[in-house]
Amino acid sequence: MQLDQFKLKEARVTIVGLGLMGASLGYELCGYCERVTALVRRAEAAVEAVESGCVDDATLDARAAVADANLVILATPVRTILRQIAELGPLLPAGAVVTDMGSTKVEICQALETLPSYVQVIGGHPMCGKEQAGLQAAESGLYENCTYVLCPTSRTTESTQNLMLELVEHIGARPLILDAPCHDRLVAAISHLPYLVASALVAHVDAVGATDATVWDVASSGFRDTSRVAASSVDMLMDILITNRHAVIDAVDDYQGRLEMLRDLLESGDEVGLRSMLETIAEARRGWRDR
Amino acid sequence: MQLDQFKLKEARVTIVGLGLMGASLGYELCGYCERVTALVRRAEAAVEAVESGCVDDATLDARAAVADANLVILATPVRTILRQIAELGPLLPAGAVVTDMGSTKVEICQALETLPSYVQVIGGHPMCGKEQAGLQAAESGLYENCTYVLCPTSRTTESTQNLMLELVEHIGARPLILDAPCHDRLVAAISHLPYLVASALVAHVDAVGATDATVWDVASSGFRDTSRVAASSVDMLMDILITNRHAVIDAVDDYQGRLEMLRDLLESGDEVGLRSMLETIAEARRGWRDR
Repeated sequence: MQLDQFKLKEARVTIVGLGLMGASLGYELCGYCERVTALVRRAEAAVEAVESGCVDDATLDARAAVADANLVILATPVRTILRQIAELGPLLPAGAVVTDMGSTKVEICQALETLPSYVQVIGGHPMCGKEQAGLQAAESGLYENCTYVLCPTSRTTESTQNLMLELVEHIGARPLILDAPCHDRLVAAISHLPYLVASALVAHVDAVGATDATVWDVASSGFRDTSRVAASSVDMLMDILITNRHAVIDAVDDYQGRLEMLRDLLESGDEVGLRSMLETIAEARRGWRDR
Repeated sequence: MQLDQFKLKEARVTIVGLGLMGASLGYELCGYCERVTALVRRAEAAVEAVESGCVDDATLDARAAVADANLVILATPVRTILRQIAELGPLLPAGAVVTDMGSTKVEICQALETLPSYVQVIGGHPMCGKEQAGLQAAESGLYENCTYVLCPTSRTTESTQNLMLELVEHIGARPLILDAPCHDRLVAAISHLPYLVASALVAHVDAVGATDATVWDVASSGFRDTSRVAASSVDMLMDILITNRHAVIDAVDDYQGRLEMLRDLLESGDEVGLRSMLETIAEARRGWRDR
């Protein structure tokens, strides 16, 4: 049973970290919620944050930032979130709801469950992003139509989940409730594996380019799209890969087996088998695009 | 030594096949060259071609199509081109220049070299395309700024190469002269490998989706881009993969080794090594984008 129950409009929100995700959320909540505060690391970031209008105020003082917050949203990279859960835990007021926007969920949800029993917890992961990072790239509308995964833990109350559903609806996203292991397995397939797949492709082309730089001149839209995510922030991806290591390795192993099947069908000259497998794949991809 | 030497304006062009590539080229040449004829398979296609304005006339009769042509451009799928080289060979008039727009070049250039010595030959491959195929998708401007690879064979004369350079310049593309084996090795890396890489990714996600269809709901821009080319025409890709089998298999093998390196660094928890490899890759990809 939850002590405090409140609506999003009554929330005194603290957003921890004003990168692309945190600041874009700030634009949606500032002016709607009772108050939106940011906890940031640098004095210039605090000034910039308030000037941008994505928060009402900003501070470098963790204690002050969460003292009377009733909704604390951790919007930093995954392993920073893990550290901040431990650091902020003793500072949180009773009845506060703590959630996060991290890209992997098993380790974060485990950490959330270690928080004092007088705070509420629920994991979260909005499935969107853009090439640029940081406050400058933040914008209202970023979450429009994106899937926002919510990962309740064993101690998440219904009213906490309802508060987050209200937030997801308010920002125009589509909520999807998943348990954390399921979330991590699915994002390994559709996000972390694609990153490694694209990275290995760039590594191959870079090796070809070392003996024949012309390869970069003939590269066009197929290479561009297939390799795009290899240019992502390595800092962010390192956190993701390390905290989702087991699911990612399982995904890579299954993937390698499927690529090997295609390769072997080609080598053996089994045109019927190769065509059949490629047609099934093309249909699956077209079916997704058409949804 | 070449018997006939002529400029593009004096060319009586025959385009064999009016798909996206052939018809888009037709729009650039029709009205500029002395005459542009199409050789097509269906009577309706002939009517449609003339009505669209991408050619002056169109016929289903191979003999009539090439009888007085001095520039014959094969714009069909790779293995159709191989068959058409053999079929059209005896019908070609002396002095005609024969080129093609096929996606692989070693087998096509070998076939071109079997043509009678009184015709001129040179392979070609404009590196562009779009999602849609066919005459309906064709457009003037398709070749603007694309790289157009020319593959001279051992019997290609300078005047033949100059004619094709004039054509490439006329359509706004950038010429790149490569020998056929080099072309095939480079496009294996930046086009055919990406197709198989994307296809294996879709196969993996499809397998995950068989037990948890939610995977398709969480898939977003990373998966979309990395997997896009898996929806390409299987007919076209089968021809490409089969005629470039050896280079493609070599590329897959090298690629798999590099993906395995990333996987092993992750499994062993070697964060320094993993970060270093991913940073090098991200830099390579960003460097290409900035060119």
